[in-house]
Amino acid sequence: MNETLIAETSAAEVESRCRAAAAASAELADLAAWPPSRRASLLLGLAAALDASAAELAGLADAETGLGSGRLTGEVARTTWQLQLLADVVADGAFLEVIIDHARAAEGPQARPDLRRMLQPIGPVAVYAAANFPFAFSVAGGDTAAALAAGCPVVVKAHPGHPRTSQRTAELVLQACRDAGAPDGTFWLVHGFEAGRQLVTDPRIKAAAFTGSPRGGRALFDLAASRPDPIPFYGELGSINPVFVTAAAVAARGAEIAAGFVGSVTLGNGQFCTKPGLLFLPAGHGLADALAEAVRSARPARMLTPEISDGFRSGARDIADADGIRLLAAAPDGQAEAGPGQAPAAGAVLYTAPAADVTRQPRLAQECFGPTSVVAEYRDEDELVEAAAAMPGSLAVAIHAEPGDEQVSRRLLEVLRSRAGRIVWNGWPTGVAVTWAMQHGGPWPATTGSIHTSVGPTALRRFLVPVTYQGTPAHLLPGALQDANPLGLPARVDGEARG
Amino acid sequence: MNETLIAETSAAEVESRCRAAAAASAELADLAAWPPSRRASLLLGLAAALDASAAELAGLADAETGLGSGRLTGEVARTTWQLQLLADVVADGAFLEVIIDHARAAEGPQARPDLRRMLQPIGPVAVYAAANFPFAFSVAGGDTAAALAAGCPVVVKAHPGHPRTSQRTAELVLQACRDAGAPDGTFWLVHGFEAGRQLVTDPRIKAAAFTGSPRGGRALFDLAASRPDPIPFYGELGSINPVFVTAAAVAARGAEIAAGFVGSVTLGNGQFCTKPGLLFLPAGHGLADALAEAVRSARPARMLTPEISDGFRSGARDIADADGIRLLAAAPDGQAEAGPGQAPAAGAVLYTAPAADVTRQPRLAQECFGPTSVVAEYRDEDELVEAAAAMPGSLAVAIHAEPGDEQVSRRLLEVLRSRAGRIVWNGWPTGVAVTWAMQHGGPWPATTGSIHTSVGPTALRRFLVPVTYQGTPAHLLPGALQDANPLGLPARVDGEARG
Repeated sequence: MNETLIAETSAAEVESRCRAAAAASAELADLAAWPPSRRASLLLGLAAALDASAAELAGLADAETGLGSGRLTGEVARTTWQLQLLADVVADGAFLEVIIDHARAAEGPQARPDLRRMLQPIGPVAVYAAANFPFAFSVAGGDTAAALAAGCPVVVKAHPGHPRTSQRTAELVLQACRDAGAPDGTFWLVHGFEAGRQLVTDPRIKAAAFTGSPRGGRALFDLAASRPDPIPFYGELGSINPVFVTAAAVAARGAEIAAGFVGSVTLGNGQFCTKPGLLFLPAGHGLADALAEAVRSARPARMLTPEISDGFRSGARDIADADGIRLLAAAPDGQAEAGPGQAPAAGAVLYTAPAADVTRQPRLAQECFGPTSVVAEYRDEDELVEAAAAMPGSLAVAIHAEPGDEQVSRRLLEVLRSRAGRIVWNGWPTGVAVTWAMQHGGPWPATTGSIHTSVGPTALRRFLVPVTYQGTPAHLLPGALQDANPLGLPARVDGEARG
Repeated sequence: MNETLIAETSAAEVESRCRAAAAASAELADLAAWPPSRRASLLLGLAAALDASAAELAGLADAETGLGSGRLTGEVARTTWQLQLLADVVADGAFLEVIIDHARAAEGPQARPDLRRMLQPIGPVAVYAAANFPFAFSVAGGDTAAALAAGCPVVVKAHPGHPRTSQRTAELVLQACRDAGAPDGTFWLVHGFEAGRQLVTDPRIKAAAFTGSPRGGRALFDLAASRPDPIPFYGELGSINPVFVTAAAVAARGAEIAAGFVGSVTLGNGQFCTKPGLLFLPAGHGLADALAEAVRSARPARMLTPEISDGFRSGARDIADADGIRLLAAAPDGQAEAGPGQAPAAGAVLYTAPAADVTRQPRLAQECFGPTSVVAEYRDEDELVEAAAAMPGSLAVAIHAEPGDEQVSRRLLEVLRSRAGRIVWNGWPTGVAVTWAMQHGGPWPATTGSIHTSVGPTALRRFLVPVTYQGTPAHLLPGALQDANPLGLPARVDGEARG
């Protein structure tokens, strides 16, 4: 397969694929034709197909991204686990949020007809793949899995950083859809910048999910909002993910914190959306040498794409030029082993500045995608809490504290719970488990909509719309809403959980 | 109290009230200081205060809106029932959606740290009151109740159609907040067009809820989306609420359908968001005389405001000018009993046209707020189903059919479930019960976001944001997330419902 064979998708084809998705939508939404168990089997079939091709996929992705076959094989496993968990979620059926109120004769406002509410698929979803997870946040990644689990056809816009991996994954998704008997139009992959813009404005697309840069995400968000009929745009844009360390934590385990922090900053060469971009340490922390040593020993790696490499260098320059900033340590960039069109390697760079300088310069609290971070030195507990309060929205934040830090811990938790989707205790923001209780979201600019998550079972809620049937004869109701409960679903009936 | 005393709120005061709301936000969000039971008692206190003042409030509102004291007293009762139901919802605690995953040691992607997720208040909410429900969708109406129940401070922008009613209601809300010990800034009322624009762009406001015209709603939606940090804007704009009647239903109960339809069109003088704006009848239905008679006997009433009156007349002219339209019946406008600044009365007007003319002219499927509707005559079942498929999003649709209509009933249900938030069987779209299973929402232009409702317990979800705590010591967790479960909340623990 040759990269030049993967052409940008034409406007006519994008339109035709959206039309096919719309046609598939009604069939997929029909729980008589497509009960939860059948959706689950599609997801499980896809997981099995990815597992069976894991080595091939990891090889393709390593050639395109340089992320290494170990990491990439692990990422395929994470992607198949995600599909398997969502298959469980679909089979569980609680995601349909069935609510049944039988008619009640009463005087006044408590009177009601028979009302039955459930969630149903929103319709065709556009998914914009990310650069940094060629599997978990790409063609068959979390957004695609959640949309298919919810019963929505998906049109994925491939990331240009791994087109062949995307194409091969798409073949597997298409085959899994065929094997499950899903209608044509259930899934398609498009390529190209213009195809991406067209997707979000196509009238047949009813929601969009995006993981990428603040600039690209904002442009697509604005297009979605400016439609004659705006659609929800679930974008993950950029996140600073600050870490707050108390003096007692430094005293108790400073070396461990220095090593853990640099490890989190340089994981995936800093190209994770949860990379900590700020580390708040008490002035006089004494960790400068340990941090510098960790930075110098981190192995430089290729950046994902030339554009991301350029963005990293320009972002790092912006940091270096800010008031009060000093260079703390820099690793050499190493030899560029990159082939044509690939990005060079980049070594980690660590800066430091007084916390007061960080909080008064908003650009220091903006994500710089790549292996860099800023150590912000605070004078006292009040300045630490004020800095936390000055942070923009993040996907995750972390607190390192000791049992004696009761007061500052409570103050930080109080402030931070409205500034991030996830608060990590004595750990690092990187590492996002795929499990029921995960929240991967956060206030702007971390995401475009803080009430949702893009990881975990509750990610389905983005693609589901409530509908209520009033006074409808039982045999005409969807099975999910019948008193006989043929699908065995949990429900709230007349205000109480159905036993 | 004199209307001239209710001045437009200055920019400085709007800002100061938003600042106060932000200050109140943290305290209200704290479930240690403000447990669900305390939020519930605030709502119940407000309900009791409204009940105690029902006669005074209805009198004020009748003077401002002319809706009649019977209807208005009933609306106060509906509003207090709404507060009482939401108090139950808060006490129930399921709305917090607690999910707990204990740590799991495993190889690969199933490994996880301890993760605990719950919903928390989004922060200060701007509520834009509606003209047509001076209680149920106004100062202490559904949006305010849902936001307070969720733990969010509220700044309401009063509707200019009933300023004194709004002011008096606001006094009761403020007193109820004080009685419950809520922080200053929990609630405030502002007046004026510019204050409304300022509210949705104030950086301290984190979400907005609106019920009103498509033009006003779109303008505010665009402001919300164009912020540097866009916020969710939950707007209910305009809805055509079509009704589909089979030939068998006409044969079985034509007179009842004609009377029921005109009753639904003229309820509240057509100034309901769920008024049916289209009635699909089979050609040769023979109901023209019954419809005309019902229209002529409907009592004309004052329109809510001069602006709404103007909008109705211009909208009715647009309908009259459309291709294929004929006047079916018109009631006289009656005597204008309006005082200075009040709108004149308007009589009901009914038009008719072939269904084909309706579906090819989108303006005929746009809401005309007031006592008018169009009877669309279809040739056969296929044309009826095609017309249903051509409808824009609605809050509600209705189907009138008989047991023998199995096939067309299924076809209509299949098409309509993605075009409305509620499907009414052998009934009328007007009448929105406040109960667990209610869905009051729908695809654009019915609302700006079809995944939510503005009525019923699930309306809280609009104002709640997930946060996940990772590896946090039990004594630092919110009580809602502790294994000891001091608040007695339902939860999903390690994937299963907590018994």
